Amino acid sequence: MQTEPQQALMTDPDDVQQHLHDVQALLERHQLVEHLARGQQDEGQPAQAPQTSLAQREHLAELHQLVARLHPADIAYILEALPLDDRLRIWDLVAPERDGDILLELSDAVRESLIEHMEHHELAAVAQNLEADELADLADDLPPEVIESAIASREEEEQQQLRAALSYPEGTVGALMDFDMVCVREDVTLEVVLRYLRRFDELPSHTDKIFVVDREDQLKGILSLEVLLINDPEMEVSEAMRSGNIIHFSPEDDADEAAQSFERYDLVSAPVINERAQVIGRLTIDSVVDHIREGSEQDLLNQAGLREEEDIFASVWDSLRNRWAWLAVNMITAVVASRVIGVFEDSIARLVALATLMPIVAGIGGNSGNQTTTLIVRALAVGQIEHSAYLRLLRKEVSVALINGLLWGGFLGVLAWLLYGNPALGVVMTVAMTLNLILAASAGVTIPMVLSKLGLDPALGSSVLITAITDSGGFFIFLGLATVFLL
Amino acid sequence: MQTEPQQALMTDPDDVQQHLHDVQALLERHQLVEHLARGQQDEGQPAQAPQTSLAQREHLAELHQLVARLHPADIAYILEALPLDDRLRIWDLVAPERDGDILLELSDAVRESLIEHMEHHELAAVAQNLEADELADLADDLPPEVIESAIASREEEEQQQLRAALSYPEGTVGALMDFDMVCVREDVTLEVVLRYLRRFDELPSHTDKIFVVDREDQLKGILSLEVLLINDPEMEVSEAMRSGNIIHFSPEDDADEAAQSFERYDLVSAPVINERAQVIGRLTIDSVVDHIREGSEQDLLNQAGLREEEDIFASVWDSLRNRWAWLAVNMITAVVASRVIGVFEDSIARLVALATLMPIVAGIGGNSGNQTTTLIVRALAVGQIEHSAYLRLLRKEVSVALINGLLWGGFLGVLAWLLYGNPALGVVMTVAMTLNLILAASAGVTIPMVLSKLGLDPALGSSVLITAITDSGGFFIFLGLATVFLL
Repeated sequence: MQTEPQQALMTDPDDVQQHLHDVQALLERHQLVEHLARGQQDEGQPAQAPQTSLAQREHLAELHQLVARLHPADIAYILEALPLDDRLRIWDLVAPERDGDILLELSDAVRESLIEHMEHHELAAVAQNLEADELADLADDLPPEVIESAIASREEEEQQQLRAALSYPEGTVGALMDFDMVCVREDVTLEVVLRYLRRFDELPSHTDKIFVVDREDQLKGILSLEVLLINDPEMEVSEAMRSGNIIHFSPEDDADEAAQSFERYDLVSAPVINERAQVIGRLTIDSVVDHIREGSEQDLLNQAGLREEEDIFASVWDSLRNRWAWLAVNMITAVVASRVIGVFEDSIARLVALATLMPIVAGIGGNSGNQTTTLIVRALAVGQIEHSAYLRLLRKEVSVALINGLLWGGFLGVLAWLLYGNPALGVVMTVAMTLNLILAASAGVTIPMVLSKLGLDPALGSSVLITAITDSGGFFIFLGLATVFLL
Repeated sequence: MQTEPQQALMTDPDDVQQHLHDVQALLERHQLVEHLARGQQDEGQPAQAPQTSLAQREHLAELHQLVARLHPADIAYILEALPLDDRLRIWDLVAPERDGDILLELSDAVRESLIEHMEHHELAAVAQNLEADELADLADDLPPEVIESAIASREEEEQQQLRAALSYPEGTVGALMDFDMVCVREDVTLEVVLRYLRRFDELPSHTDKIFVVDREDQLKGILSLEVLLINDPEMEVSEAMRSGNIIHFSPEDDADEAAQSFERYDLVSAPVINERAQVIGRLTIDSVVDHIREGSEQDLLNQAGLREEEDIFASVWDSLRNRWAWLAVNMITAVVASRVIGVFEDSIARLVALATLMPIVAGIGGNSGNQTTTLIVRALAVGQIEHSAYLRLLRKEVSVALINGLLWGGFLGVLAWLLYGNPALGVVMTVAMTLNLILAASAGVTIPMVLSKLGLDPALGSSVLITAITDSGGFFIFLGLATVFLL
């Protein structure tokens, strides 16, 4: 919907989808012309080079205009939605001075695919134009010599900021913060602050508050734009500012915890201070939102056994590399489970119904264990459970498993009895289901809590571990009970 | 770390953890005293009621003070981390006028647990004090008569807003928006706007821009606080405002898409307009962040087969209800897979190694299919793949599956041959692995794309469906091939 149809540049959530379609349509026509031209040449007809390339040039010019009008984030979106060859075609149409902004908006996988195809001098130009915190964001993907020369070309102060930004490990506040901010002294009036702000061409993005510092750059308070705007200009900053209850971070703080604070206190920006209480940077909601999104995506990828985000149009080889690590782990656990069954081959030979029923015991155990793990991992992630709550949680999850086991296991036991006319087999089925669900619940609580206690990510691999335990355990319990009591 | 140790109200990401520990310690001492008092009575000693209750009163007073000092979001955090009995104890200490703010911050599950224990008149008081958009947020959890009487007590304009807010379905922009905003006319100077703002006691939260409207409330442009602050006060609003490229939403817009726009364009707030281009509300980053977090949690819960978020201290009965829906589906698919095996019982009886090897084929197929589905679901969620890309994606995923199948399947085939001295069994293993991985890849691409084409959530249940297909399919392919070629 457009409020002002006379404007060429209205933006609407659906617009980017429309732009993508336009780009795809133009690319298709472009390729069709190319295809026709080649087809005619193949058939031995004289190549109509001038004419076809005119049509092609028109398409390219049209694409060029379209791309020039788009927001960097929209171009990033379109690049991500295109297969590699089309992606590179569009990337070539982007004005070099916009390359940096667009690379910053791209997902890691797609950014890599473009950087791979860029010349050294193009990358150097990109690095030259980025701000310190932006360069730090891209540092992992750029060649080290490009980074080094970009650092060397900066002024002293920015060089220091850059080296600092590059030194903070991923997952810390330092890696997310930026260095642009507005600071004022406390002994001036709001009028002076207003006049000072009028000297800016633009404020740093997401400026909702100004930091009040002393001569040593130590944080004395914060002055929100709101307070600046609603108060009498004659008021002094020291009177208007808030000096207590300031939410602030250190560069070493965990980025996840900072994100939780942003959510909890609905922040737009917050000061980052060093150990001497000096303001050295600023954390803003846009970096935090990106961090939240990446974190939850990583959780989903981990649960599915993927090493990292994957460009949907990645080459088969890139996809294989991304998926092999977890497939290999899965293969080992599957072979172990298979060897557990191997122990009981004699029993299966004597009562083949066991082979038919055992995957039910293992499968439902795995599903149930994953339910438990997901809840515990989530609660651990938001810091909601203490390690001291272990026994209480274990008791509850085992109770749930016991009831599920007796009820659903009882139902399956009756089913097994009816199918095979063997009531004892039904009882073994019920008992095995119950025991495996209890095993699943215990492992589902214990594994993430132990991983977290060891300082590891509780989500990483816990699903694979749970499934390994409930598979091998389920086969062992069911076949073992059957061997002892039925044969 | 504290910049100003003299301040009682410094806030730091670790503080809330500290507050939680303080509350827990006080509660423990409180319960210990209670326990001792009861113990003495049990042993027939004269109850020292006055003395023990003095100690208890002291603990309660201390808790009361602590709770009174905390931010509503911090109290919500602490309530979520406490078991139900302690939770209710702390909830009783909260001043009634703060109940609403805290309920808004709580997760659905924990909010329900508290509302269940509140009197009708307490809930009515909470509803009375909430703003229109806040009341709409809580509407699902409050009794209908409480909502009705809260609406009836409002002024005409707010009643209309409330009925509108309540009418927008979950997942739309309308359900997330709020109604507080600052609007100005375009024919005044910035100085006039500055004077107008000084008449406010406070601005609506997350005001980073002011909406410029005409007499009919139609959106003419936006004036960011930044532009207001850095420009000459003599400038007219019409000159300073941006009238093109305004990102805006309708109340019917999809909330997920709005969230993507907020991320893409790094927004703090955006106008919501009706079909006549009148500004009716505002979407702010804090609601958007909550929406993003809830959405990604829902994805994780769905993948694990959980119906909804679960209070980690929920009763066993509540937990059972939450988990049964998916366990039931899982049981049906497990029984189907079991019946597929049942068809081949004769083959297993003749070659028991089949029972040992079949779970490997099924298990690795399931894992691999889930990898594919996760990538497709994610790409669909951010609108990155068109339905027209189906064949291209299918071709790629099947290629990956073919290579994985031949390599890993070949490895497992050799293992089977070595274990059972039967080279033909090894070949069947390799072929079955390859075919099941191709089946997994096809289902992994097809299911989410079909669900999405049908307008359903592509994530919902696709994991269960994939596993069902790769289990039953894996057993059928492996046992079927073995029956035809080995027996």
